[in-house]
Amino acid sequence: MEIAIGIAETVLSQLQKPTLAFLIGGMMIAALGSKLEVPEQVYRFIVLVLLLKVGLGAGMSVRDANLSELAVPAIGAVLVGILIVLLGSRTLARLPGVSRADAMATVGLFGAVSASTLAAGMAMLEDEGIAYEGFIGALYPFMDIAALVTAITLAKLSAARSAQPQGDGTITLGGGGPPKLEGMEQGLLKGILVDTVKSPAISALLLGLAIGMLGRPDTVFDSFYEPLFRGLLSILMLVMGMEAWARLSEMRKVAHAYVLYGLAAPLVHGVIGFGIGMVAHEMTGFSAGGVVLLAVLASSSSDISGPPTMRAALPEANPSAYVGTSTGVGTPVAILSIPLWIALADALIGV
Amino acid sequence: MEIAIGIAETVLSQLQKPTLAFLIGGMMIAALGSKLEVPEQVYRFIVLVLLLKVGLGAGMSVRDANLSELAVPAIGAVLVGILIVLLGSRTLARLPGVSRADAMATVGLFGAVSASTLAAGMAMLEDEGIAYEGFIGALYPFMDIAALVTAITLAKLSAARSAQPQGDGTITLGGGGPPKLEGMEQGLLKGILVDTVKSPAISALLLGLAIGMLGRPDTVFDSFYEPLFRGLLSILMLVMGMEAWARLSEMRKVAHAYVLYGLAAPLVHGVIGFGIGMVAHEMTGFSAGGVVLLAVLASSSSDISGPPTMRAALPEANPSAYVGTSTGVGTPVAILSIPLWIALADALIGV
Amino acid sequence: MEIAIGIAETVLSQLQKPTLAFLIGGMMIAALGSKLEVPEQVYRFIVLVLLLKVGLGAGMSVRDANLSELAVPAIGAVLVGILIVLLGSRTLARLPGVSRADAMATVGLFGAVSASTLAAGMAMLEDEGIAYEGFIGALYPFMDIAALVTAITLAKLSAARSAQPQGDGTITLGGGGPPKLEGMEQGLLKGILVDTVKSPAISALLLGLAIGMLGRPDTVFDSFYEPLFRGLLSILMLVMGMEAWARLSEMRKVAHAYVLYGLAAPLVHGVIGFGIGMVAHEMTGFSAGGVVLLAVLASSSSDISGPPTMRAALPEANPSAYVGTSTGVGTPVAILSIPLWIALADALIGV
Repeated sequence: MEIAIGIAETVLSQLQKPTLAFLIGGMMIAALGSKLEVPEQVYRFIVLVLLLKVGLGAGMSVRDANLSELAVPAIGAVLVGILIVLLGSRTLARLPGVSRADAMATVGLFGAVSASTLAAGMAMLEDEGIAYEGFIGALYPFMDIAALVTAITLAKLSAARSAQPQGDGTITLGGGGPPKLEGMEQGLLKGILVDTVKSPAISALLLGLAIGMLGRPDTVFDSFYEPLFRGLLSILMLVMGMEAWARLSEMRKVAHAYVLYGLAAPLVHGVIGFGIGMVAHEMTGFSAGGVVLLAVLASSSSDISGPPTMRAALPEANPSAYVGTSTGVGTPVAILSIPLWIALADALIGV
Repeated sequence: MEIAIGIAETVLSQLQKPTLAFLIGGMMIAALGSKLEVPEQVYRFIVLVLLLKVGLGAGMSVRDANLSELAVPAIGAVLVGILIVLLGSRTLARLPGVSRADAMATVGLFGAVSASTLAAGMAMLEDEGIAYEGFIGALYPFMDIAALVTAITLAKLSAARSAQPQGDGTITLGGGGPPKLEGMEQGLLKGILVDTVKSPAISALLLGLAIGMLGRPDTVFDSFYEPLFRGLLSILMLVMGMEAWARLSEMRKVAHAYVLYGLAAPLVHGVIGFGIGMVAHEMTGFSAGGVVLLAVLASSSSDISGPPTMRAALPEANPSAYVGTSTGVGTPVAILSIPLWIALADALIGV
Repeated sequence: MEIAIGIAETVLSQLQKPTLAFLIGGMMIAALGSKLEVPEQVYRFIVLVLLLKVGLGAGMSVRDANLSELAVPAIGAVLVGILIVLLGSRTLARLPGVSRADAMATVGLFGAVSASTLAAGMAMLEDEGIAYEGFIGALYPFMDIAALVTAITLAKLSAARSAQPQGDGTITLGGGGPPKLEGMEQGLLKGILVDTVKSPAISALLLGLAIGMLGRPDTVFDSFYEPLFRGLLSILMLVMGMEAWARLSEMRKVAHAYVLYGLAAPLVHGVIGFGIGMVAHEMTGFSAGGVVLLAVLASSSSDISGPPTMRAALPEANPSAYVGTSTGVGTPVAILSIPLWIALADALIGV
């Protein structure tokens, strides 16, 4: 009971912090029909600076880190990404009124990661003075790529399998099916990997990582990327709040199953991430802040880099379903649940 | 005489300060035909950040303020907005070559408020180390909405009245006129209020106010909004200088009355605002800096949020007249006259 | 030998510094086919802020400077600009497969100056704690305009001369040729000067200079332009790296002579600038940092303001040739060779 009250108090006080206040503010003014907008080009620039900051910070930490410390959380991140997609393929994909392709696209986005949500989690931990491993930003691509690859591969496979029986039996005779699938899978895997690495979000992050690891960007990090981080994040939260509200209307066009999934998945996934983080905590002394951020990564769903990848890889899937569920429901729920993971870590590990 | 010399010295030294130097610089390079431009999307973003800053600062002050202190200046702001419009409807609107609709649109913009001019005033006071009530930003919507509503209502009423006699007498027989007008007025009032609150400028300001009052944005305010304020303002002043010069050419198309009004109105309105500020000073100890900023608000004319409202509400009015007069003449005169109010407050109250 | 090792070490450690690391990073991710991009409007804004910063800093220094100290480097800058163009008109323009117009356009850009390269040089000197005259930014337009005017004039003259014999002899009889050329030259000279001064880059720089000299922008310079300088420069270097890679492909369409020129010219020109800087060092005690920056100015080629000027003045020249050579080869070579000038100055003067 005391734990519950403590959690509730933490959550409430977090809602007043800039990050959540701007998110909620964005939803409010969108709900009131405000014509305020953050220009698209400025928005993309803000995301770029945030991703470079996260990447640079992670790279500088990896430079100084004991790589064996990084290995366990990295494997954990891959596992979380795959687990989320497998879970979704057995829940959302089997709900009534949900097509296989739409479900897998949605599930893939929920397994993938949101840089903005991660940045929000980092800002909140720093506000609380809770330390975390600097290399956390480097876990982002592990979980992101694992989830996208798994989701798209499963979707393609089931599409190929269901297309099989309808094919002309006289031509795809004998063992033709499986080898074709195998070759397709390999090409597919490579294609997804290449597309993901080339996507603006991942490549900005990897660029920051590389410069952080190989260069000496400390002066520019301290004079620019670090000081501007919170402010640009506040603008980004504003945009995401407005965007979430706008996307909610798209949800009306798809099955209610998506609303349910969008509300529940961030919490379930956060628990999965938190659990695997706790394992890493026991094994390698992974910090409480690190456990929180692994939960945040798991809880978040891709809003910037994921949707274009899905559109390219699964053109048959309906964007109203996956973008609406992810940006309209999943992202605000994930951001609003960050205080929960902080409170949980405080209760279980102590921060 | 000594006061006059003191005022002249203050004005001259202010012209060297960044705010006015960038405004004058912008006018100069526009006059020289420079192809320099600040991209539109960046410009809109800068305005957004400035408005959020003013709103957040005001909200944080209102949170800690004695609300009765706010009441008198707020009523004063509403009075100033209405007075300016009534004055304009008896001066500009009666000058030769001036149509009623054009005049009321122009007068409405001059009664409404410019966030950039207010920001310039705040920056100048801070440069001088002159204190002012933090809640001043919260006065903006009071004056803005009062002026826009009064101007549009008067214009619609006189349009309806002048349309009346030309109508077919057999149909609008009896008391039909007044009730129709009354219903129209109520719908009109609501429409203007809703439009104004939804406009990007006012909603950014109200959002900042709300987050400042209800949230705890202090960290992001101190790390981002406050430090970037002067720099972004310098860019904005540059844009406004260039814009003012470009708009001047539009003035050639309209009656000379507008040039006269654009030059005189900011000074007359500033005196009205200053006078009402002095009343508040006597009544509630409203600060010298506050009196200056009330004069600045009164003196300023709307350049961002006002014109679209006017275009929507009074489509028959000529934008060359009201945008040209406001942006081309009124705004630079208002900004350049800020040192005058500082010098006046110093002479009358002491700063 | 020890000098060579010292130079090599300086160069290597510089590659890790933010400025060069971001440039190389940009080239890398472009080479990997990343879809990352910095929005065009934001990019133009970043350049504007950098130019204002360089101009303001120079203006504030000129305000306090002994003008006779400025005179010698300014004359040196004009000389360098003219020398580079004359050298190019006798080398690149005579190589096989190179048209006269294309050559002169390319040579003009290499004589003109890149604000980004200059900013990179300044940031590197500051990283090393090497002092330089604050007025260096004021040398930019001297070299830029001298080079553009010389190149365009030479191109027009040779076009006019080669057109002469083909003309109808009966009409341009007698002394018609020379006077026509002379009148054309004067109009041309004035046209180039006006176009250059009106170009966004030069007018931003001159505006900053004017405000720095006549105003008191110190507060906004310290709170905004100076702190943001390195961070915005890192983004700009990223863009320039990506742009350089993209332009390289255009080089395939033109003669190999351009690649050769693009690789060699920044080094040769840097030596010319360094040499003239050494003369100024002996004559007036021009600082080691100043000598480095004069070499950087000479080594750099125009990437922002020059190309549009060339397109307008020499429409017959092929942009693939001059933009590709300048942005694709010259600029990265010039930026990457900055550490060379620092090492050279250290060896010859001591920094």
